[in-house]
Amino acid sequence: MAQLRIALAQVNPTVGDLDGNADLLVEWTRRAAEAGAHLVAFPEMFLTGYPVEDLALRTSFVQASQRALDGVARRLAAEGLGDLPVVTGYLDRRTVSLVRAGQPAGSPLDAAAWLCGGEVLVRSAKHHLPNYGVFDEYRIFVRGDRLPVVRLNGVDVATVICEDLWQDGGPVSVTGAAGAGLLLAINASPYERNKDDVRLDLCAERAREAGCALAYVNMVGGQDELVFDGDSMVVGADGTLLARGPQFTEELLIADLALPAADPGVRPGRTPVDALDGTTITVDRHSVSAGPPPAYAVAPQPVAEPLPDLAEVYGALVLGTRDYVRKNGFRSVILGLSGGIDSALVATIAADAIGPAAVHAVLLPSRYSSEGSVTDAEELVKRQGINSRVVPIRGMVEAFEAELDLDGLAEENLQARIRANVWMGLSNQDGHLVLTGGNKSELATGYSTLYGDSAGGFAPIKDLTKTMVWRLARWRNGAVGRPDLPFLHPFEEEPIPEEIIVKEPSAELRPGQRDRDSLPEYTILDPLIVDYVERDMGRDALVAAGHDPALVERVIRLVDLAEYKRRQYPPGPKITPKNFGRDRRVPITNRWREPGTR
Amino acid sequence: MAQLRIALAQVNPTVGDLDGNADLLVEWTRRAAEAGAHLVAFPEMFLTGYPVEDLALRTSFVQASQRALDGVARRLAAEGLGDLPVVTGYLDRRTVSLVRAGQPAGSPLDAAAWLCGGEVLVRSAKHHLPNYGVFDEYRIFVRGDRLPVVRLNGVDVATVICEDLWQDGGPVSVTGAAGAGLLLAINASPYERNKDDVRLDLCAERAREAGCALAYVNMVGGQDELVFDGDSMVVGADGTLLARGPQFTEELLIADLALPAADPGVRPGRTPVDALDGTTITVDRHSVSAGPPPAYAVAPQPVAEPLPDLAEVYGALVLGTRDYVRKNGFRSVILGLSGGIDSALVATIAADAIGPAAVHAVLLPSRYSSEGSVTDAEELVKRQGINSRVVPIRGMVEAFEAELDLDGLAEENLQARIRANVWMGLSNQDGHLVLTGGNKSELATGYSTLYGDSAGGFAPIKDLTKTMVWRLARWRNGAVGRPDLPFLHPFEEEPIPEEIIVKEPSAELRPGQRDRDSLPEYTILDPLIVDYVERDMGRDALVAAGHDPALVERVIRLVDLAEYKRRQYPPGPKITPKNFGRDRRVPITNRWREPGTR
Repeated sequence: MAQLRIALAQVNPTVGDLDGNADLLVEWTRRAAEAGAHLVAFPEMFLTGYPVEDLALRTSFVQASQRALDGVARRLAAEGLGDLPVVTGYLDRRTVSLVRAGQPAGSPLDAAAWLCGGEVLVRSAKHHLPNYGVFDEYRIFVRGDRLPVVRLNGVDVATVICEDLWQDGGPVSVTGAAGAGLLLAINASPYERNKDDVRLDLCAERAREAGCALAYVNMVGGQDELVFDGDSMVVGADGTLLARGPQFTEELLIADLALPAADPGVRPGRTPVDALDGTTITVDRHSVSAGPPPAYAVAPQPVAEPLPDLAEVYGALVLGTRDYVRKNGFRSVILGLSGGIDSALVATIAADAIGPAAVHAVLLPSRYSSEGSVTDAEELVKRQGINSRVVPIRGMVEAFEAELDLDGLAEENLQARIRANVWMGLSNQDGHLVLTGGNKSELATGYSTLYGDSAGGFAPIKDLTKTMVWRLARWRNGAVGRPDLPFLHPFEEEPIPEEIIVKEPSAELRPGQRDRDSLPEYTILDPLIVDYVERDMGRDALVAAGHDPALVERVIRLVDLAEYKRRQYPPGPKITPKNFGRDRRVPITNRWREPGTR
Repeated sequence: MAQLRIALAQVNPTVGDLDGNADLLVEWTRRAAEAGAHLVAFPEMFLTGYPVEDLALRTSFVQASQRALDGVARRLAAEGLGDLPVVTGYLDRRTVSLVRAGQPAGSPLDAAAWLCGGEVLVRSAKHHLPNYGVFDEYRIFVRGDRLPVVRLNGVDVATVICEDLWQDGGPVSVTGAAGAGLLLAINASPYERNKDDVRLDLCAERAREAGCALAYVNMVGGQDELVFDGDSMVVGADGTLLARGPQFTEELLIADLALPAADPGVRPGRTPVDALDGTTITVDRHSVSAGPPPAYAVAPQPVAEPLPDLAEVYGALVLGTRDYVRKNGFRSVILGLSGGIDSALVATIAADAIGPAAVHAVLLPSRYSSEGSVTDAEELVKRQGINSRVVPIRGMVEAFEAELDLDGLAEENLQARIRANVWMGLSNQDGHLVLTGGNKSELATGYSTLYGDSAGGFAPIKDLTKTMVWRLARWRNGAVGRPDLPFLHPFEEEPIPEEIIVKEPSAELRPGQRDRDSLPEYTILDPLIVDYVERDMGRDALVAAGHDPALVERVIRLVDLAEYKRRQYPPGPKITPKNFGRDRRVPITNRWREPGTR
């Protein structure tokens, strides 16, 4: 056996910020060197950030990524870090590019490189390209066909990229055939509720398949709708969990591994191997240090406990919101605070994300607002210490009514749009990012006003059903005084007044209005939305699953009709596997009605 | 040689309207029978409409498509049309479906069927799946691996689907190997400016490659952002154009062909053939009528002239707008009419699309509106006979100003949003679809107000640069009295007053405002937008192409910053290959700046 101390750099890059990401790479490599690591690994596409979408098709961007890689390799050496091998993801392209109809221009690659001694030792690229859910990689990448195996301290280390772990055949299969002692996977794997359990099982399965230990380093941070949760880990060849990083925070996960020594008879060079997926992959062997170092004392391996369900969801919302604000250059947010549960939770998430002093609430009472709306909102403002102002909208409503005869829904929408006009105006005047408070239940059923309550730059709770909004509000109140959760602001009392949690939901756009006059009870509606939207279940399957037939028909009709509004909704952190936005694609013009519905 | 009279049904289906599309299939098959055709062909995915996006992943929808196919086959026979073979596209799925990570659930197929004698004779599916530009087919389809060859009147007819023509290898290659006498391609090929020329060249090339005549039937109609232009055609084995349908209108294109008789020794059955693209395709031979019919006199083949450039673009806008209104169940539209060129052209397109009586204009003067704004708009209303009303916004602006201190851009945006609130209110009250008037130059540079002038349900000119807006306005004025262009309303005088065309562009949101205070001259800006957005050219490439370096930097900065607004823009007809929306994907959070720009 040979000893190897690896450092997994679970770091937060920004898409397009090549210089900033290179700075992070140098900084975290220095930390790894100070920790005595023999190898430090950064996530997939770390130098460019992930996902780059169509930037991959722009020649200037690909070239800048290539130059950034060479530059950071030289800089590591210049700063005395050249002896510590670094594995990082970056954007590359094929040297010889075939121009073919429908193939991504310039043949871009989702690439990985080993940096060593101021140079690039070996390059490879992702073999299995995901093209489902949030992933569109067939649009922008071509497939890699090489497995690097680098001898380090006498251990053969193979590197693969993210989806290569999720598909059968390909690089993992070749890793087994190549007899590697460690499989290092670099990832940009977005958070999904409960995905951490799936990841550990997957890593364990692939470690057994490859017949060696597996080190998994994942990105952390928010990028538009995606939230990368970290959760980096190391498992042994038998699938045992050896080390695990925390979620939603940057971390240098250090693990001391005892690994099988490589066969000294196997020399550097290239060997094609059947990848058992209909392709051939070339094993590309290099050697950095053929023999093991002298024995040294191992450090204890940190094994973080995954967060419980609600803490995990809340952590994702806070990180997604903070990074959207920060990475887009905003320093403060503004939101309409109605006295209802949705805007109350959004304000709380914002205060946790960027601090109460940077949160600005506007209270916008109308003639239909209840007394409690303003007093409850003011109580929240006081408890959290956020900024607030009151802008009554009565005069503006009357000015429109002087020119237009609107009633019913048109009149209700008018009020919602006047409110949006106020917060957008204050945003334009003062430079705040507007947060909008719609939840997934409203968004799914179209129970919101286009250009009204749905207006804004970021929608922190767009992927939470209403029942989840209530559960998270209660969870957050219960999490006061929890220094173990670093993504929470240290409020001294419950940040959300109980009155806001227990009141009956109402849009307050007409006298006595209640959500349940227009929608089913949320405890019945929400599971149906989950089954219809996330699971693509049809009418008969929904009824067979126990949902009320009349309700199924009503909700299917609402959800199908609301498609247009959802297309215009701001981005927000994804929590579930199939959400609105990039990963649910249904035509706006569409006459399809589920069988049995009218 | 054997004679064959084929009918290409260039028809307009609606996504999801299985019953309505089946009705169209029966109706057009009857017309083909009355015309004495031996075979009638409908476009790709005709029974479901195209594109179905994620509806393909819903089991109930796939099953409904399968039932609709069987049902329409039986119905054709019941209505006395069973003897006329029909080829149509529909949605199917593999009988045995592999559940694999990342593969589309249920293994949906973009399928084609021959219907004959009340039954389905043979089924196949698209082999080459496009996954670029507006296409996302790797998400939702798996690949077909069968080439049907059906003997009809003694001629072997092979059928392929759309992208199968555009890629090398695969079904076209196998068609040649199979010795077919006619290659029938069914298509849902969206309009792009100048694509008609590409299509003819492609058909000629593939006919020569397959060694037989090629019949190409394309869909017509608008579907969200896509406009299918028809342009169905038939070319001979040497690539000569034999028949061609018109653009932007439904048509039954009949062609009498003299084709090589099949080898009687080749019998029905299945034969695997190397498809020269790394796969094997099974030739699936059937026979409907082994011998040629008695000789008959041929009818002359219609060969439509493709429309000139501006007529073609205008036709696409009219059809795209009409179908978006109609297929979404609206009967009328409303728009703000500012007296400027953009809203004037949108009003004219709308009047052409659905008739002036269904068009409602709102004139919304403010304290900054010029005298001409109202009088020019009123002149347009008079010439076109559309409906109008005047809603001054001064009082509403003052009501906001009573509560808020806004200046600069915030004050300008306020006015734009108040106007949007008025037309959205009238839309909600009266059931009109809101048309919005932004053009591609504004959209690209962010020179518009989110939730203001950009608000609405459909954006007819979102893919036109400002210079193209002017050119089309002049073209439309010059096209008065052109009964050969059936998509134009028969106005008796020029529909757009000259004053509107020649006036200097201004948003009129502050005193003396002109577009050129904020933007470069459009004649300089527009070609740069085209190169940067459509061609993905980087900074250095743009400068090398002759654009002014300072302007390049300024425009890149504007376009990159405007990404968020564009994400929230309503759909509109696509004219160019790479537009905003589904087919330009750049992260909102993105720090990448082109080298040399700041």
